[in-house]
Amino acid sequence: MDIDGTAEAIRTMEVRGAAKIATVAAGALRDLAAGWEGDDVGTLREELGRAGRTLLDTRPTAVSLRNAIAAVLKDMETCPDATALKELVESNADVFISRSEQAKGLIGRMCAGRIRDGSTVMTICNSTMAIAGILEAHRQGKSIRVLAAESRPRRQGYITARTLAEAGVDVTLIVDSAVRYHMAKTDVAVVGADAIASNGAVINKIGTSQLALAAHEARVPLIVCAESYKFSPLTMGGELVEIEMRDPAEVVDPGEFPGVKISNPVFDATPPEYIDVIVTELGVIPPGAAYEIIVQQFGYGALSEVE
Amino acid sequence: MDIDGTAEAIRTMEVRGAAKIATVAAGALRDLAAGWEGDDVGTLREELGRAGRTLLDTRPTAVSLRNAIAAVLKDMETCPDATALKELVESNADVFISRSEQAKGLIGRMCAGRIRDGSTVMTICNSTMAIAGILEAHRQGKSIRVLAAESRPRRQGYITARTLAEAGVDVTLIVDSAVRYHMAKTDVAVVGADAIASNGAVINKIGTSQLALAAHEARVPLIVCAESYKFSPLTMGGELVEIEMRDPAEVVDPGEFPGVKISNPVFDATPPEYIDVIVTELGVIPPGAAYEIIVQQFGYGALSEVE
Amino acid sequence: MDIDGTAEAIRTMEVRGAAKIATVAAGALRDLAAGWEGDDVGTLREELGRAGRTLLDTRPTAVSLRNAIAAVLKDMETCPDATALKELVESNADVFISRSEQAKGLIGRMCAGRIRDGSTVMTICNSTMAIAGILEAHRQGKSIRVLAAESRPRRQGYITARTLAEAGVDVTLIVDSAVRYHMAKTDVAVVGADAIASNGAVINKIGTSQLALAAHEARVPLIVCAESYKFSPLTMGGELVEIEMRDPAEVVDPGEFPGVKISNPVFDATPPEYIDVIVTELGVIPPGAAYEIIVQQFGYGALSEVE
Amino acid sequence: MDIDGTAEAIRTMEVRGAAKIATVAAGALRDLAAGWEGDDVGTLREELGRAGRTLLDTRPTAVSLRNAIAAVLKDMETCPDATALKELVESNADVFISRSEQAKGLIGRMCAGRIRDGSTVMTICNSTMAIAGILEAHRQGKSIRVLAAESRPRRQGYITARTLAEAGVDVTLIVDSAVRYHMAKTDVAVVGADAIASNGAVINKIGTSQLALAAHEARVPLIVCAESYKFSPLTMGGELVEIEMRDPAEVVDPGEFPGVKISNPVFDATPPEYIDVIVTELGVIPPGAAYEIIVQQFGYGALSEVE
Amino acid sequence: MDIDGTAEAIRTMEVRGAAKIATVAAGALRDLAAGWEGDDVGTLREELGRAGRTLLDTRPTAVSLRNAIAAVLKDMETCPDATALKELVESNADVFISRSEQAKGLIGRMCAGRIRDGSTVMTICNSTMAIAGILEAHRQGKSIRVLAAESRPRRQGYITARTLAEAGVDVTLIVDSAVRYHMAKTDVAVVGADAIASNGAVINKIGTSQLALAAHEARVPLIVCAESYKFSPLTMGGELVEIEMRDPAEVVDPGEFPGVKISNPVFDATPPEYIDVIVTELGVIPPGAAYEIIVQQFGYGALSEVE
Amino acid sequence: MDIDGTAEAIRTMEVRGAAKIATVAAGALRDLAAGWEGDDVGTLREELGRAGRTLLDTRPTAVSLRNAIAAVLKDMETCPDATALKELVESNADVFISRSEQAKGLIGRMCAGRIRDGSTVMTICNSTMAIAGILEAHRQGKSIRVLAAESRPRRQGYITARTLAEAGVDVTLIVDSAVRYHMAKTDVAVVGADAIASNGAVINKIGTSQLALAAHEARVPLIVCAESYKFSPLTMGGELVEIEMRDPAEVVDPGEFPGVKISNPVFDATPPEYIDVIVTELGVIPPGAAYEIIVQQFGYGALSEVE
Repeated sequence: MDIDGTAEAIRTMEVRGAAKIATVAAGALRDLAAGWEGDDVGTLREELGRAGRTLLDTRPTAVSLRNAIAAVLKDMETCPDATALKELVESNADVFISRSEQAKGLIGRMCAGRIRDGSTVMTICNSTMAIAGILEAHRQGKSIRVLAAESRPRRQGYITARTLAEAGVDVTLIVDSAVRYHMAKTDVAVVGADAIASNGAVINKIGTSQLALAAHEARVPLIVCAESYKFSPLTMGGELVEIEMRDPAEVVDPGEFPGVKISNPVFDATPPEYIDVIVTELGVIPPGAAYEIIVQQFGYGALSEVE
Repeated sequence: MDIDGTAEAIRTMEVRGAAKIATVAAGALRDLAAGWEGDDVGTLREELGRAGRTLLDTRPTAVSLRNAIAAVLKDMETCPDATALKELVESNADVFISRSEQAKGLIGRMCAGRIRDGSTVMTICNSTMAIAGILEAHRQGKSIRVLAAESRPRRQGYITARTLAEAGVDVTLIVDSAVRYHMAKTDVAVVGADAIASNGAVINKIGTSQLALAAHEARVPLIVCAESYKFSPLTMGGELVEIEMRDPAEVVDPGEFPGVKISNPVFDATPPEYIDVIVTELGVIPPGAAYEIIVQQFGYGALSEVE
Repeated sequence: MDIDGTAEAIRTMEVRGAAKIATVAAGALRDLAAGWEGDDVGTLREELGRAGRTLLDTRPTAVSLRNAIAAVLKDMETCPDATALKELVESNADVFISRSEQAKGLIGRMCAGRIRDGSTVMTICNSTMAIAGILEAHRQGKSIRVLAAESRPRRQGYITARTLAEAGVDVTLIVDSAVRYHMAKTDVAVVGADAIASNGAVINKIGTSQLALAAHEARVPLIVCAESYKFSPLTMGGELVEIEMRDPAEVVDPGEFPGVKISNPVFDATPPEYIDVIVTELGVIPPGAAYEIIVQQFGYGALSEVE
Repeated sequence: MDIDGTAEAIRTMEVRGAAKIATVAAGALRDLAAGWEGDDVGTLREELGRAGRTLLDTRPTAVSLRNAIAAVLKDMETCPDATALKELVESNADVFISRSEQAKGLIGRMCAGRIRDGSTVMTICNSTMAIAGILEAHRQGKSIRVLAAESRPRRQGYITARTLAEAGVDVTLIVDSAVRYHMAKTDVAVVGADAIASNGAVINKIGTSQLALAAHEARVPLIVCAESYKFSPLTMGGELVEIEMRDPAEVVDPGEFPGVKISNPVFDATPPEYIDVIVTELGVIPPGAAYEIIVQQFGYGALSEVE
Repeated sequence: MDIDGTAEAIRTMEVRGAAKIATVAAGALRDLAAGWEGDDVGTLREELGRAGRTLLDTRPTAVSLRNAIAAVLKDMETCPDATALKELVESNADVFISRSEQAKGLIGRMCAGRIRDGSTVMTICNSTMAIAGILEAHRQGKSIRVLAAESRPRRQGYITARTLAEAGVDVTLIVDSAVRYHMAKTDVAVVGADAIASNGAVINKIGTSQLALAAHEARVPLIVCAESYKFSPLTMGGELVEIEMRDPAEVVDPGEFPGVKISNPVFDATPPEYIDVIVTELGVIPPGAAYEIIVQQFGYGALSEVE
Repeated sequence: MDIDGTAEAIRTMEVRGAAKIATVAAGALRDLAAGWEGDDVGTLREELGRAGRTLLDTRPTAVSLRNAIAAVLKDMETCPDATALKELVESNADVFISRSEQAKGLIGRMCAGRIRDGSTVMTICNSTMAIAGILEAHRQGKSIRVLAAESRPRRQGYITARTLAEAGVDVTLIVDSAVRYHMAKTDVAVVGADAIASNGAVINKIGTSQLALAAHEARVPLIVCAESYKFSPLTMGGELVEIEMRDPAEVVDPGEFPGVKISNPVFDATPPEYIDVIVTELGVIPPGAAYEIIVQQFGYGALSEVE
């Protein structure tokens, strides 16, 4: 798909979901490079930069989109000629897409490796990667029991509970306020991530940080499952991940609560000291290695936006 | 009202609410003693004992009912004759009823004393005593802001939010999973209690203990508001407060979740180390004074049931 | 038995064990008072005081002996005449002895009340009271599993393991260094006490405080089982419980370790913040109620020795 | 001295210092009762009440003054006639004064009992009771080393350092910002108190709570030394101890800092969980026994002011 | 400037301040290389090594000086000939100097990114980098309030308070002992660093570690601002950063304190678990990335001194 | 030695000890490559792969063996021809062997650098690297005192105590249950490692994690000494380090304990937050740098086994 078509598809949400957006955008940039016929490296570089900005403008706060574009255009300035640049961009895009496609399987297997037979596992919200780990542990024949927190306001925990039950996993639905109560009988907690800051803090669905706190209090290890493109290079440059406030109507009908304010933060930040490991397709890492993952993927160019 | 009528009214829930049940039962015992016309102290003692058991059987797990009966019949064995016994029971009942009636005002004023002007106050569920404290602080002209947690599954936080808003208090409703997020900007937390164990642990609506944990993590003091008849003498004798499991249908319609279990604990236990003070009508106490409150009210007779 | 005979029996260890020593000494003082035939209250008081010192001198650091004597001679100065004094001492002694005899049963039942069906229970050393609680839980039909720490250097854990196995309890012996490893799967820890200080600190067999620390780290409640005469009034007067250093030969044969020092502390102190409850025959109390237990039993006379 | 003369002497600071004020006021009330010649108990009661208020108005926030008056007038309403009331007040006053006079010696000896030979002791500000404990340990021949924190802004630590040095104690002066640095080599910390709340929180010179935090972090026990009249009955009734803000000029000359605000809080509150013991003349207690000390001294009348 | 002149200027403190010393030394080495006219790479290498040692000897404990020399002479042994070596040294020096010059702006902007509008910010001592962050946040129009700790003994906090006030920032001066008191109303803490060890521990002005502890206790994030040349390669080789003891006369006039010792440590070490992020010109990193920063800048040559 | 002979020597335990096994295996692979005479790179690669598997099969859970083979065969696929491959393998092997040989000296010196003069040092089990650090500190003339924990069940602490005593070090033997008791007077703890996971958790002799917990509670830094080949690349791929259960007869004679189970875990896992530094021959690192050490040594090939 060409750049404009891709941008339109992302903007209209025809293409949606962090992983999907990222790979489609990477593919569009690769196609642009692959189809380029000019000789001048400067022109191609400019064109690719413009295309990147066009794509980014469709969803400027989506970490996976931003990272996909950065990964594909990485090291662009080192290419002496257009041929080298075309090759670089194609190679970068192929690596990015292929790694994304393999991430779920890899992360699932690594996460499953850390869930022992006979364990009670707690999770929250509906994370594809966390569920991949749980399902893989089940597939390996481990006897596990899962506690799925409801995840108010939007109750994504319902999807998780149904998905696991359909796969034959022993799953129990609990309300978010019962997380600490059930932690006393939990062996391991597994969650996903929306973004990971350069200091290893994990931004995820509201409620994750208090689950993490209760796990820490009870010496229950917390596993975060996240593809490497969830790591946010902007935080390396000093940006704080802003916690989005969503529509109060997701919580209750405001009309029924005259005079009552309603606050609806969608994410919270879990500090690194409550996290045992982050499972990425690049391996099982301590939260403190977040900086290294960012540098390794994006180089110090991640800093350029603040210079 | 006579004993049987009172028992019936409690059983049919015509009389309900911890405070109401306790004072009505105390009144019935007093009436029985006051109207007694026999001379034999032994017979009266037996009769009162029987009446106490009749009342207790209507709601055997209600701490306030049990305590009301125990308070009225306290020291019964020390009376040499029927007249003395009648006087004792009447006096015990009057003290108990009068203290109960004053408790809300006293606790409200003491709790308000600990809420500073300009504070953000977090609360959970719908505790009469906690709300009394908040409203009194508001009435005193303090500028306060309240965060009311929803309190799934039954959402008693809605009642709290509406009650406070109607009284002109600045109140914001939040979901239970956002408790830790908002704790960073909270100055003090205020909750009620269903029962207090002899070691100072507080049994209250599910979610209280994780609110307490998040408060402790952020150096936010937690105030528990509770009448002295919420202290459980049975725990002094080794009984654990059992956490009641309620109907899963309070959480979701189980029919929509085939293969999914649903766990619905209604209370949890907050450990004493997360509690700054317990405000009772007997004063502001540390959680560790729970044992003393029980002994002072019930004596060591509280132990007799295990002997 | 008369005072001198009793003193001799204690000194020669014919009478041994904290409970035995205490009740025998109380009985000897009662016998002295009961058999007294003089009229002068002052003379009897002096005689009783002398008898108390004679008994105390046999084992001056035994908390239970000291407390038995104090309990029997309590309030002696309030008696106007010899008859009243005789009655007081007899009554004090009877109360003390009867309470001691009932303590094991009471503490066992109260402790068992706090062990849930299906629990894994960790214990250390060989505490009569802790074992009473575990056996009572077993007798009540609860399915429990016990982890018994070896308790180097003298390995009293072996006795515990054998006692429990003989009673049909599922028991596993572990080395002391594996306490934290096994704590991850433990639900409750139960230990005894040699002495309890007025601030609630528990002096018990070496290793108890690190078991308590590991329990606290993993949110596992720690139950201390102790008769009320284990509470040390001397600590209320500022004395520190001295940790006795025993013979290095209990650890290894020093001759085989030329140039190596060997340290063999027999007790350690567990701070109150790691203790969930202390179970005494006076009820289940928070560690902070230790001061009250001492005052209630010994009055402020406990302070007189430092004045 | 008569009431008006005493009030004047307190107001003009001719009489100053917590202990001095308290005993002088108690003496004036005793003298009033002792010299009373009327028969009517009601009139004497009114007169004593008026005298109490006159004295209290001179320094309404001085805890020791308020407590002295309350202790002397305790149980006044129980006296059937003027003679009984006179006797009660005289007796109350004598007990209060005598206990105050003995407190320093008692507290010093009890505190010294908890300082082991060879210890490094940290202290802050200039507490008579804490210094009494340190000097007594020195007098007992224990080899100790003291670290005295400067205690900005008024540097009362200088007095402490000089007092100890003059007594031959090995003392080292440190700045307040070096407290945590030196805590690594400290064995025990000893501080005084200005007031103690009913939940065991200790109000003392600014800097105490961060010394307590650093001690807790390093497993160094913290001893608070305080006479029993430092316990605040008003806090039992819900009052918060207000932290006084003093003149900025105590910190720096504001004229030299144009545009800079200066905050000068004189006290801070140390939470009970950072305190090992409170040493009072009534014994060594856990902070959680503060409520009991207040009730025992003032009864529930301590609550009457909020009713 | 030539090597000897530069060394003299550093020794005489004509050139002072960590940043200034580092860039001047780097410039001197570059000038030496640039002006070299010989052909033999070995000779030049020796000469540069000698020059490095001359410069280092002027201030052997200054981390920035040591690091500047190491950065400029990095990879010297890989150069096959004198031309390559000259180019390498010039390039290394230019990179080092340019990065130093940009560090303040970069760090200021990144730090400001982490200070939210409406925040109360606490700082200690007088750190150029921390102040850069605070001023940048102010310049961006954020409404902030700053608490500046006095920083005894030398009171560098006065300079901070004046600097911020002159720039129009709302700043309040507090004594060091009031840090924990004010932490309850603080949103973020920002400090500088004198040196950073390879495990992420931060060596900074005495008092920093207790500020960090109080921040951690209250869930207040701590930001450390430091140029990358503050990271100490020697610690990677096992050296402990020695805490310098300065002249007691900085604290008080010893003559006025006969018999009193005075301890004046100038720095303390903040453990990594109390640090949220370290802001360097290479990005916002977790403290655990300190090792990586050192390896990346100095390679494993940092270890050579211990081999 | 050829591959088969080497494998046999490892299998029969003629060659034993983590370091010895690793270097002998590396030498065998080097000899195979060095002696290879064929031209075809593919054949040599296959042959080396086969040899690696043969060696690995002798002790599949030995981390050092696995790592030695991986280090020697690293980057094998990048070699265009047999000559390059031979050179690579020889070079890899030489680097690995030489680094291993130097590790003990390097680690000893770095560890000693972190032990201050006058310190009390606690250790457990019998770690060559930890002892190297302690002996080096002693050799440097530092006055140190060592506490050696017995290390039940096999009591390797006896060897440590004897080794240190023979070298003239002041050493005291303690039982494992006395670790927390003695921690109050300990300045630094030093232990070895059997394996280190990618998140920085240290697997070491049972008892290490509770020593670490007690050190953390008392603010005593914990140093882990470990060669870089102790870091486990398999954990980067999601494997949990399995804790081996050894023969119960190591603990007691099961025949003497009828009906008693015996659990004998040989290792436990110390979480990274209780570790101050890991001292490796690559430098002093924070535990969070474990991931980086693994990637740097083994590359992402460490992940290939899960792909």
